[in-house]
Amino acid sequence: VASIDSRPASGTRDLLGPEVVRRERVFATVREVFARHGFEPLDTPAFERLEVLEGKYGEEGDQLIFKILRRGEHERTGEADLALRYDLTVPLARVVAQYSDEIVEPYKRYQISPVWRADRPGKGRFREFIQCDVDVVGTDARTADAEVIVTVADALAALGIEGYEVQLNSRQALHGLMEAYAIPAELEGSALVALDKLDKIGPDGVLDELADRGVPADAVTRLGADLRADDVSDRARRSLETTERGKHGLAEVDEVLGLVQPGLRGGSIRFAPLLARGLDYYTGPIVEFTHPDAHGSIAAGGRYDDLVGMFTNRDIPATGCSIGVERVLQLVDEGTAADHAPDVLVTVFDEDAAGDASAVARRLREAGLDVDLYLGSGRLGKQLRYADRRGIRYCVVRGPDELAAGQAAVKDLETGEQVAVGEDDLAEHLRGLLSARRDDR
Amino acid sequence: VASIDSRPASGTRDLLGPEVVRRERVFATVREVFARHGFEPLDTPAFERLEVLEGKYGEEGDQLIFKILRRGEHERTGEADLALRYDLTVPLARVVAQYSDEIVEPYKRYQISPVWRADRPGKGRFREFIQCDVDVVGTDARTADAEVIVTVADALAALGIEGYEVQLNSRQALHGLMEAYAIPAELEGSALVALDKLDKIGPDGVLDELADRGVPADAVTRLGADLRADDVSDRARRSLETTERGKHGLAEVDEVLGLVQPGLRGGSIRFAPLLARGLDYYTGPIVEFTHPDAHGSIAAGGRYDDLVGMFTNRDIPATGCSIGVERVLQLVDEGTAADHAPDVLVTVFDEDAAGDASAVARRLREAGLDVDLYLGSGRLGKQLRYADRRGIRYCVVRGPDELAAGQAAVKDLETGEQVAVGEDDLAEHLRGLLSARRDDR
Repeated sequence: VASIDSRPASGTRDLLGPEVVRRERVFATVREVFARHGFEPLDTPAFERLEVLEGKYGEEGDQLIFKILRRGEHERTGEADLALRYDLTVPLARVVAQYSDEIVEPYKRYQISPVWRADRPGKGRFREFIQCDVDVVGTDARTADAEVIVTVADALAALGIEGYEVQLNSRQALHGLMEAYAIPAELEGSALVALDKLDKIGPDGVLDELADRGVPADAVTRLGADLRADDVSDRARRSLETTERGKHGLAEVDEVLGLVQPGLRGGSIRFAPLLARGLDYYTGPIVEFTHPDAHGSIAAGGRYDDLVGMFTNRDIPATGCSIGVERVLQLVDEGTAADHAPDVLVTVFDEDAAGDASAVARRLREAGLDVDLYLGSGRLGKQLRYADRRGIRYCVVRGPDELAAGQAAVKDLETGEQVAVGEDDLAEHLRGLLSARRDDR
Repeated sequence: VASIDSRPASGTRDLLGPEVVRRERVFATVREVFARHGFEPLDTPAFERLEVLEGKYGEEGDQLIFKILRRGEHERTGEADLALRYDLTVPLARVVAQYSDEIVEPYKRYQISPVWRADRPGKGRFREFIQCDVDVVGTDARTADAEVIVTVADALAALGIEGYEVQLNSRQALHGLMEAYAIPAELEGSALVALDKLDKIGPDGVLDELADRGVPADAVTRLGADLRADDVSDRARRSLETTERGKHGLAEVDEVLGLVQPGLRGGSIRFAPLLARGLDYYTGPIVEFTHPDAHGSIAAGGRYDDLVGMFTNRDIPATGCSIGVERVLQLVDEGTAADHAPDVLVTVFDEDAAGDASAVARRLREAGLDVDLYLGSGRLGKQLRYADRRGIRYCVVRGPDELAAGQAAVKDLETGEQVAVGEDDLAEHLRGLLSARRDDR
């Protein structure tokens, strides 16, 4: 058995103590903000019946679905009947169909859960990763689009992330713009795909690709002029005023801007007329959060009115935003190892002292301290090394001398100092040391 | 597409808002207690390479593993190379082998994560369920066995669960007892399986089964006398004193009792000489938490010194306990719907009032209230019904009259009362109402 590889499966990660604590704190903050904005959580199973997921993500996406073998005697057939969740949107659509009696619309829900994709693993690309989605289902009100943006922005602010920029556009406006540039209707989708690569391949790359995709030269020229202009948003506004769809889209953008802007703290929002967003299911306002210290977007979403109704016979408007958890985690202050470590280690002098050490640990815990008890005994040096490696600064030591004197020694591993304290004052003494340390920061 | 079944896959559940909130609160409390006792969290991937899991759970267990198909062109072969986590112990053993440089032993870790088993779904039996494990790896100190019990007991106490009973035994003591009863060594395992059913089939059932399994009649008689005795623990103590293994096991039990008993609040602990625990990997103290209001055990565990070393070439002693999350959730006070609902709904008089309503919601949120903003407008009755269904008691209403007067009306859906409040006093007024409500309980 010793020959079995002990690494996690390709594309997945084990998260040890401090990393889990750090992530949990971030999730707790985000959940709190979502709740403060009236969103409620949802939890769906890790796997769905295969038919629920298949055919929902396009050919490329479908190939990335992890499929689960039938059990029992059917296992030999090699057939799959279940599959791991690929995103949180299809399960949301299923839930909305299944619990229409219980769910109150507009349904404001969030879900922070892992999803699985059989992507080729790479730097920063995992086969298991957390998605963090907020969505409003069942209303086409502009306030819903705004509420989602405000909620995500407030979550970033609560995490101490400042200087983010919200880029806002509308699919309606984009269509209007394509019309204004006289891009043929049948090439619109193709043109949007090219436009979506602006960040990656730059203006010249986009224009080359548009030409390659058969967009007429004069349309490419018109679009190119706006693409390179400093006042792209003003120019686009003028273009948009020339078509009905353009006007409609612009009104949509301005309404959302008007609702979001007054309350935005720590970041800014602007009309981004060339923002396209890759996915083709968006139907209204679309949004992307970027940050100077992060690569790509840290959150993104939009309105998708034709998707949630997939399991019902009615149209269900919806709008949402997904926070890029891994990128956001990189922007959050790490804290020190000591932030995640217990406050104190109670050492155990020898086997006979185990009962006394347990009692000391119990009293300190009852006083509200995070207390580790060394599980073993003897060789103080080993116990102190354990504390040091776990990031624990203070150790309680109680040998026969201290015990006889009704005292305990408190050793500070950072300074090496050791002081004797009366056993009844121990909790108070440690609390003093810990709060002084906190004030130092 | 409308014909797709929108239920979750067989044996799995969707958890809607209030249920997720309730569970998250319980998990948060448990995590806090684990941290206060110096345990650190661990998070491992949902799936493992198949070879990591296969052959670890016995023939029956292995058949319950959910297997994941190879991807890409290999999919057609119908072969599996990954599998969903079946428990949290095998991943722990893998992690201990993989990160021996980073992990500080004794390693005190907890993990609260879903596991998946292809069991036949039934009442209260799911194919996806949460396990909540605390373990200490890398020491055979009795303090470790005690620490695990104390930590679980403190978690139950923190959840407000009182009156639990901890039954403590030792595998060593059990072996000694079998010796004392003169049960042939080769029938010991078989006898323990019968004994483990005591709760289900009663003393007569156990004795019948022992006889069926070939245990000699005089041994059955001796065991039967203890099994039916009121002073079973005293009788067992006397029997245990007659063998070396018995004495050793009894010392183990008494040591753990001595460490745990002084600190136990809200429950009691006792020596349970006939407690067997089904799993055959236990090697030392074993423990079961029961509660008069719960069926079966609410937590259980023990020492298992031969399991964690499975991926390494060294023996690694370990002891742990698993909390039965579903049973514990049933013992926790549910709270009312209002406990999980936002504090206030800000209604939206008409489309033109959306900006004002957004601003009101923002100010109340900044004041620390949980605020839902109605996403839509018009028909106050519909908006109030929405609040009522979500369990929101207070609604802010601001029509043209209130707006002109610089006021907002606060409607109490429970009493039907409505009062006008100056807009600058709104947050304070609502806070007063909410804290009065809290005091009422």
